[in-house]
Amino acid sequence: MRADRLGPILATIVLALGAEAALAGGPVALRGTGDLGLVIERAAGRVQLIETTGRTSLGAIEGLGDLSHASVVYSRDGRFAFVFGRDGGLTKVDLLERAVAKRVVQAGNSIGGAISQDGSLVAVSNYDPGGVRVFDARTLEPVADIPATYGPDDARSKVVGLVDAPGRRFVFSLYDASEIWVADLSDAAAPAIRKFADVGAQPYDGMITPDGRHYLAGLFGEDGVALLDLWDLDKGVQRILDGYGRGEEPLPVYKMPHLEGWAAAGDLLVLPAVGRHELLVVDRRTWQEVDRIAVHGQPVFAVGRPDGRQVWVNFAHPDNSVVQVIDVPTRQIVRELQPGPAVLHLEFTPRGEQVWLSVRDADRVEVYDTATFERLAALEADKPSGIFLTARAHRIGL
Amino acid sequence: MRADRLGPILATIVLALGAEAALAGGPVALRGTGDLGLVIERAAGRVQLIETTGRTSLGAIEGLGDLSHASVVYSRDGRFAFVFGRDGGLTKVDLLERAVAKRVVQAGNSIGGAISQDGSLVAVSNYDPGGVRVFDARTLEPVADIPATYGPDDARSKVVGLVDAPGRRFVFSLYDASEIWVADLSDAAAPAIRKFADVGAQPYDGMITPDGRHYLAGLFGEDGVALLDLWDLDKGVQRILDGYGRGEEPLPVYKMPHLEGWAAAGDLLVLPAVGRHELLVVDRRTWQEVDRIAVHGQPVFAVGRPDGRQVWVNFAHPDNSVVQVIDVPTRQIVRELQPGPAVLHLEFTPRGEQVWLSVRDADRVEVYDTATFERLAALEADKPSGIFLTARAHRIGL
Repeated sequence: MRADRLGPILATIVLALGAEAALAGGPVALRGTGDLGLVIERAAGRVQLIETTGRTSLGAIEGLGDLSHASVVYSRDGRFAFVFGRDGGLTKVDLLERAVAKRVVQAGNSIGGAISQDGSLVAVSNYDPGGVRVFDARTLEPVADIPATYGPDDARSKVVGLVDAPGRRFVFSLYDASEIWVADLSDAAAPAIRKFADVGAQPYDGMITPDGRHYLAGLFGEDGVALLDLWDLDKGVQRILDGYGRGEEPLPVYKMPHLEGWAAAGDLLVLPAVGRHELLVVDRRTWQEVDRIAVHGQPVFAVGRPDGRQVWVNFAHPDNSVVQVIDVPTRQIVRELQPGPAVLHLEFTPRGEQVWLSVRDADRVEVYDTATFERLAALEADKPSGIFLTARAHRIGL
Repeated sequence: MRADRLGPILATIVLALGAEAALAGGPVALRGTGDLGLVIERAAGRVQLIETTGRTSLGAIEGLGDLSHASVVYSRDGRFAFVFGRDGGLTKVDLLERAVAKRVVQAGNSIGGAISQDGSLVAVSNYDPGGVRVFDARTLEPVADIPATYGPDDARSKVVGLVDAPGRRFVFSLYDASEIWVADLSDAAAPAIRKFADVGAQPYDGMITPDGRHYLAGLFGEDGVALLDLWDLDKGVQRILDGYGRGEEPLPVYKMPHLEGWAAAGDLLVLPAVGRHELLVVDRRTWQEVDRIAVHGQPVFAVGRPDGRQVWVNFAHPDNSVVQVIDVPTRQIVRELQPGPAVLHLEFTPRGEQVWLSVRDADRVEVYDTATFERLAALEADKPSGIFLTARAHRIGL
């Protein structure tokens, strides 16, 4: 066959191969990555790839290990997901090839992670061995190891509440040591760590405000929240919201709320109260509680629609088949939805027109229009838990 | 040749074709779209495709007409750019194929546009004929025509300051009519329009706060700003900042500042004063001016780094070779850069670690690290003006 005759034949074959690959769940065609996301299918050790334009599932990627309490961050180009499993597994997933690009098991027991502002470093928060391990986002080669040692015997603490902060920094809390650490990885091989001691007993989770300025750690062992202003570290850790937390008469807590779900709406933070059927409204300028909103059950996630006009709330067992919507200016519940049993997580599209809900015990993900509350789509999923959209790549602290 | 022998040969040929296509500026390989952007090359009627991870140019797309004062919005998947030219041209560019996907000339003279919250509609702001035209984002087929008629003779006004707002709405100002209109395109074929009259003389540009709540229009004919709270339209248009604008003793204005560049940093807006060598600091809760910051020249864009810690400012001729950086908490100028002659625009990466500057008369785009102020890259470009990154797809009002 002469080379100049090969062209048309080649084109046909390439097309045929392309079609076959698509049918087999192989690589997708050229497409943008801005409307993609992953749904964690916990029991199956699998993630499902979804897109929010047509609101469909594009396939699944298997072999991610123990995905209980799993979370996801994204590469700055939106092509790769970094999935943090409970078993210490860190899996880099290629959304376009729909395949595991790389997987390392980097600890025995871990709880989430973060990606640096410049997208070059992925950090994982470990319970065992307690500390933070940092990896090259491109290769997953280890870059830095930060053991969470404390006290005279260099005991190691569980690490929780790990977030990224502007300036190639990571901030996290030491549960057993009652400390908050700020690690600056400007020189990744030699992290510069600033430690804050006696922040309050047993910080159990942390979050950073959307502007990357304030780090807050919820306290399990005391009634309050630890606050660190990253613009002024010399001020040290302040104690706020002493009415928050377990209170003087601890109530049974069915599920600790997630601090990362704290909603910011203008000057207000809306926080799930711990153990109470309430949301706390906190003024971000004074860090004082200014209101409480009675809700259906013990809130787990209270998430602000990106425009701050609404806050959507889900609840702990046995009230977890309900979702309530708060109108922020009036602080009224304007809608109650019953998507089905065990609503575990909710995620807004970045401009807020849709919200995606995982309804675990119905094996379903549901999508709602946030203006009309109409259900736009329902997708099958195997015991779905977390939902994470690629737009997180462009947000501080997510 | 047997089919089963074709595989390896095919692979080689495909690779060779791939390389050739890349050299010719043809389709790129599979890649994420989250780190892409366009630089307007005004004089050449061309856009240059750049990426912010390696900080390189990936090619150029030609044939976009008159690109003076051009601006860009993105499809929700980040694959397609909608480029608004001065000549009424609306061009849909495929960033992955590096090609014009579709182009319409929809008016004689136009000034920017917007994409609806759900990504389905693209609206263009026209001087001639005065009004807004709305197109299907997928096909660029016309969907709605909103002529900006006013007064007893149904004269048509130039339209300026067009932005998207939550709920499939567009908001814009009528320069000649002194009106602000809110168009709800929930039913795209029958826009519901709410008109606000007597907002102040000659609104010349508009912007919406990042939460999509407040629309502000700068006034050319008076000394002030018109404010509309989109959460409470019945309140009507308020007049704020009577010390803003041209003032009682108008100064020569070399270039009107861009309102879309208004920086939001926490509770503060930082605005370029008109005609003065000053920035105004405005409290968003009260809409009162709380401070002024003296700067190098007449400011054009004052853009907040995404974390709100810094505001970067460029200037009108003859001071336009300088960029100043304001530290927000202290309101001090902490750095002055001299990138070169005629710095026209600046754009931050979405998490704020880099800023891209167009230096028109040096035919260069420069990239700086916003923490160290180190110059990270310089790319050749033909008289570059606006720089627009795909992360805008995920922001309200951009």
